[in-house]
Amino acid sequence: MLNVGIVGLGRMGQRHAEQLALRTRGARLAAACSPVESERAWAQRELGVSALYDDFAALLRDPQLQAVAIVTPTTLHAEQTIAALEAGKHVFCEKPLALEVAACERVEAVARRHPELVAMVGFVRRFDRHYQEAKAQIDAGRVGRPFLVRSQSCDMNDPDGFFVRFAPTSGGIFLDCSVHDIDVARWMLGKPKALRVFASGTIALHPGLAACGDVDNGLAIVEFEGGARGQFYASRTMAHGFDTNTEVIGTAGSVSVGVGGQRDRVQSRDAAGVHHRVLVDFVERFSEAFQREMTAFVAACTGQAAAPLALSDATEATRIAVAITRSLNSGQVEAVV
Amino acid sequence: MLNVGIVGLGRMGQRHAEQLALRTRGARLAAACSPVESERAWAQRELGVSALYDDFAALLRDPQLQAVAIVTPTTLHAEQTIAALEAGKHVFCEKPLALEVAACERVEAVARRHPELVAMVGFVRRFDRHYQEAKAQIDAGRVGRPFLVRSQSCDMNDPDGFFVRFAPTSGGIFLDCSVHDIDVARWMLGKPKALRVFASGTIALHPGLAACGDVDNGLAIVEFEGGARGQFYASRTMAHGFDTNTEVIGTAGSVSVGVGGQRDRVQSRDAAGVHHRVLVDFVERFSEAFQREMTAFVAACTGQAAAPLALSDATEATRIAVAITRSLNSGQVEAVV
Amino acid sequence: MLNVGIVGLGRMGQRHAEQLALRTRGARLAAACSPVESERAWAQRELGVSALYDDFAALLRDPQLQAVAIVTPTTLHAEQTIAALEAGKHVFCEKPLALEVAACERVEAVARRHPELVAMVGFVRRFDRHYQEAKAQIDAGRVGRPFLVRSQSCDMNDPDGFFVRFAPTSGGIFLDCSVHDIDVARWMLGKPKALRVFASGTIALHPGLAACGDVDNGLAIVEFEGGARGQFYASRTMAHGFDTNTEVIGTAGSVSVGVGGQRDRVQSRDAAGVHHRVLVDFVERFSEAFQREMTAFVAACTGQAAAPLALSDATEATRIAVAITRSLNSGQVEAVV
Amino acid sequence: MLNVGIVGLGRMGQRHAEQLALRTRGARLAAACSPVESERAWAQRELGVSALYDDFAALLRDPQLQAVAIVTPTTLHAEQTIAALEAGKHVFCEKPLALEVAACERVEAVARRHPELVAMVGFVRRFDRHYQEAKAQIDAGRVGRPFLVRSQSCDMNDPDGFFVRFAPTSGGIFLDCSVHDIDVARWMLGKPKALRVFASGTIALHPGLAACGDVDNGLAIVEFEGGARGQFYASRTMAHGFDTNTEVIGTAGSVSVGVGGQRDRVQSRDAAGVHHRVLVDFVERFSEAFQREMTAFVAACTGQAAAPLALSDATEATRIAVAITRSLNSGQVEAVV
Repeated sequence: MLNVGIVGLGRMGQRHAEQLALRTRGARLAAACSPVESERAWAQRELGVSALYDDFAALLRDPQLQAVAIVTPTTLHAEQTIAALEAGKHVFCEKPLALEVAACERVEAVARRHPELVAMVGFVRRFDRHYQEAKAQIDAGRVGRPFLVRSQSCDMNDPDGFFVRFAPTSGGIFLDCSVHDIDVARWMLGKPKALRVFASGTIALHPGLAACGDVDNGLAIVEFEGGARGQFYASRTMAHGFDTNTEVIGTAGSVSVGVGGQRDRVQSRDAAGVHHRVLVDFVERFSEAFQREMTAFVAACTGQAAAPLALSDATEATRIAVAITRSLNSGQVEAVV
Repeated sequence: MLNVGIVGLGRMGQRHAEQLALRTRGARLAAACSPVESERAWAQRELGVSALYDDFAALLRDPQLQAVAIVTPTTLHAEQTIAALEAGKHVFCEKPLALEVAACERVEAVARRHPELVAMVGFVRRFDRHYQEAKAQIDAGRVGRPFLVRSQSCDMNDPDGFFVRFAPTSGGIFLDCSVHDIDVARWMLGKPKALRVFASGTIALHPGLAACGDVDNGLAIVEFEGGARGQFYASRTMAHGFDTNTEVIGTAGSVSVGVGGQRDRVQSRDAAGVHHRVLVDFVERFSEAFQREMTAFVAACTGQAAAPLALSDATEATRIAVAITRSLNSGQVEAVV
Repeated sequence: MLNVGIVGLGRMGQRHAEQLALRTRGARLAAACSPVESERAWAQRELGVSALYDDFAALLRDPQLQAVAIVTPTTLHAEQTIAALEAGKHVFCEKPLALEVAACERVEAVARRHPELVAMVGFVRRFDRHYQEAKAQIDAGRVGRPFLVRSQSCDMNDPDGFFVRFAPTSGGIFLDCSVHDIDVARWMLGKPKALRVFASGTIALHPGLAACGDVDNGLAIVEFEGGARGQFYASRTMAHGFDTNTEVIGTAGSVSVGVGGQRDRVQSRDAAGVHHRVLVDFVERFSEAFQREMTAFVAACTGQAAAPLALSDATEATRIAVAITRSLNSGQVEAVV
Repeated sequence: MLNVGIVGLGRMGQRHAEQLALRTRGARLAAACSPVESERAWAQRELGVSALYDDFAALLRDPQLQAVAIVTPTTLHAEQTIAALEAGKHVFCEKPLALEVAACERVEAVARRHPELVAMVGFVRRFDRHYQEAKAQIDAGRVGRPFLVRSQSCDMNDPDGFFVRFAPTSGGIFLDCSVHDIDVARWMLGKPKALRVFASGTIALHPGLAACGDVDNGLAIVEFEGGARGQFYASRTMAHGFDTNTEVIGTAGSVSVGVGGQRDRVQSRDAAGVHHRVLVDFVERFSEAFQREMTAFVAACTGQAAAPLALSDATEATRIAVAITRSLNSGQVEAVV
């Protein structure tokens, strides 16, 4: 039984906390840390967590913990991961690992000094059975040599523009959303080195984003060494729902994941035609994958399975997303450095 | 160049007239017959037909005609086909050939005495490239041994109930609509002999049908010799459009035609979900097939190709549809005799 | 915390046992009964069940139990349900409740004497969120007045014909499979009284079924009072997978559940076209619904929610399925009595 | 009756010749011009064209002609269009109008001096009923304000690489293929001015393209004034067929055309899953649109309808495609000039 402490009990943090407390075999949610009193009370009341902290350093000193799940704002990810590793804890950290490459590399350096510890970043699509099926088909040669990944992360529009408030610290649409697509592209293409990027964006519905240089619809092209290409689209303004999908094109075929975004197995017909509903958000789409992700983390911590992602995957995803973001700002092609 | 005369210039008649006049290579619409003056005027004005008749016998005496297309009310089909054959004309007759088996058999007897003449009934699905592709897959063994055909003919509801007025002479929903499905089932299954049938129906929207014992939604099961089965559904009351499709199930797979009934290649998405439109009517669905049907008839008349259907196919379709209609009325299983 | 004992640890029994032991909040799998020693050992080893019985009467005497889940062969369902109720236990019983109407009615009579106890039959589709969404659309009036349910239960072919061995006690394809469709039809149509039925079947791949009068593909039509109709198809021989779906047709539209049977969100394209996989079996399709079903049962037992189904629903489903089976054997229309 | 002469009897030329000769009401194919003797013989034999020329200037002197269809290699389009206009003929010219903007502008200048003549470039998608339905939905406000068009033109791979031989004169993949998508994007977005572009490409299967700087898979982003964006993908290497589609995304919804690329209404199921075929080529996809395109041209020439496209549409499409091609070569963002 792995004793895990969680830091961060916001929307995503609560989900991960529930996974650990209720649905992850071999794990026990032994401690929780949040600066918000009501969040700590929630963990105690709903999940029975008794060790509660308002200070991350204090949580790290809790001797019962073997692992930590970091679900705090992105700007804290890297330093908290470093601190946890140095405290001898396995680390699960939500994506992205950091908004700067240098921070990612500092984490990697610390992790290299602790080869006995698992450090894993939450690229949840790696644990989604649909993405895994696509990857299996690619590995089996069914698309020939994959050379193009087209991938999108499109959220249903929130008329209240809730996310606008987080824009200043999110790193922008590409670091916040496309980082998933970037990781998927690297995974599907066999981890080629990214060379150059170009990005362009527009503000369709949320002018408040302009203040921090962000957009609500962004397009990017990534050139990889060896000729492979990535094409990414991220949107905050979909009218119809959460529409996140990926297509991998190869010399002998292609495979797609998630196209259509059907919410359920129901179809309606009336005088206006045929209709179906679309997924509402990433929680609905990836709930099973979140569960499998945490199970994989626990299995890696307890030595039952290898860690499914390397920290360098997170570094490379940030490296590419940072270059894309730089291109969005400069309006020019940018090298991936 | 085959000189064809047409009798009947109602809705279907006008379509066939246009096919013959404008879009059927090797054919010329040389004469037209209708008791309605405005219809004859239409043929002259729109299609340039100069030989116009209000009497079918007169049309048959027109020496320039080698072939006749019969698109009159069903109750006239059999006797007009007989008269045309006896006048030495090839015959295309709209489905069904007749509402009674005995009439079909009389036509067959006459046709046997005129082996030099083509006599073909318009089961248009035989000429639809989608149905032909399905048939080709079956013939290629892709479904194994086909043993079940499920087929439906469902019209969009006409709130005016136009068809109710024709119900007394249409032969009822099974003879009018399901006769297509019955022919398709026989075609796909390799023409097994039908043994027994059961039918049940309901009136959902058009109480006026009760007077003539008809229904606006009908279900039927047909038992064929050797174990194959047919399951048919006909409706006049679809809200969403013309939804006609067929599924052929075999021991190694299945193939379907027309499921979904998409009207076009357009898909719309908005806050209510994902939407597409559905075909409006059989004209929209089968316009290309009507063209190919008439081309095949002309090719058979001019000796360039064999007639794609035998008259006995029409007889058998009527035989089964008559038994189904009898079952609808009796409420009991009926033998196909 | 509801202490539940389970009887029957075959394929379905093990699944329900796991649900109760691991995934049903508010429940504890406190005891298990099976005549098979290895199955009892499994329950102890995998689920930590300590109270193990080889005799159902002994399990019923276990004072810690408030509820019993009956997952035994169908022929035992009714008597075990009666015994459990008389022992003062809430009962969850797998479908069908019995193969004869009289047995169902005996259970109902006993249950009426124990209004304080929950007795629920496992019509799992009632708990499936897709079927619930369809039902909600119907209740909201989106299809107008529903008057036709077409529903199928089609299993992927098992070349070993495993199920053939169970055919003699399963009650036949309609009682074993279509009973789900029958219950769905009653639910969607608002529980109309069934009047008459007709059934027909064929053996496509499993001649061994002939010995007990069963078929591997069966068709049925049910006539309900008031004009509504049901059309059912059950098959054991699908080549492509588990293809279970339902369409409810109304005067203003229709809604379908499960059409297509997609296994996942993956689509593949190659020189042969576009491809996707289909669900393998009911476990894959309904795993979430099984979980919600047991949760609903526990909630009813603990008084947190009303029982979502009445015992009379199970009686009526059996009544109709029995009449259909009688029609399959007699070859004639049968009254539902 | 409009007398039309055609120049160019290659693959596309033959199709247009057939349209004019056989399927375009109000038009007569009165003359044909080709340097290839066998092509002229084909026009005479198959289409009954009596006036045959091997010299375009001679065809222009044919006094019976009111209109000319230009279906020659792209490098000839502009000068032949100018010559035809100066000879007083209406002109239909295949896309693209020219590979350089200056040439397009020269044509426009000449056309302005002949306002009595129709000059129309063959952007066939404008005449496709599916694209027209999408445009109608946009015009009706169903997607809100459209701000992003994603459009692709993807051909099935030709293992023989036939097109590689034409690469040196085709203008490259963007001028040859994406020019359609560019025109569609301008049409759907309301003709915004294009400002900047970026392109990237790769050679997946046809190394012979490298010699002329072309690619077999190309990606491009176009920035329009006012914030709208275009994202284009062109491929010569699809394994599964002709997969050309467009998605228009707006502030209140989106509409797509052609997604899926189904060849027919047939679906097959077997042990490997569910399958359908995909369109083979643009001829199969757009045959009806080609017919409507020529009908629209003839209607414009005879004054029955306005010309559906302006020459400036062709100029702008070339202008953008040229900038994209320049970006492909330079590897940098390019201004649209």
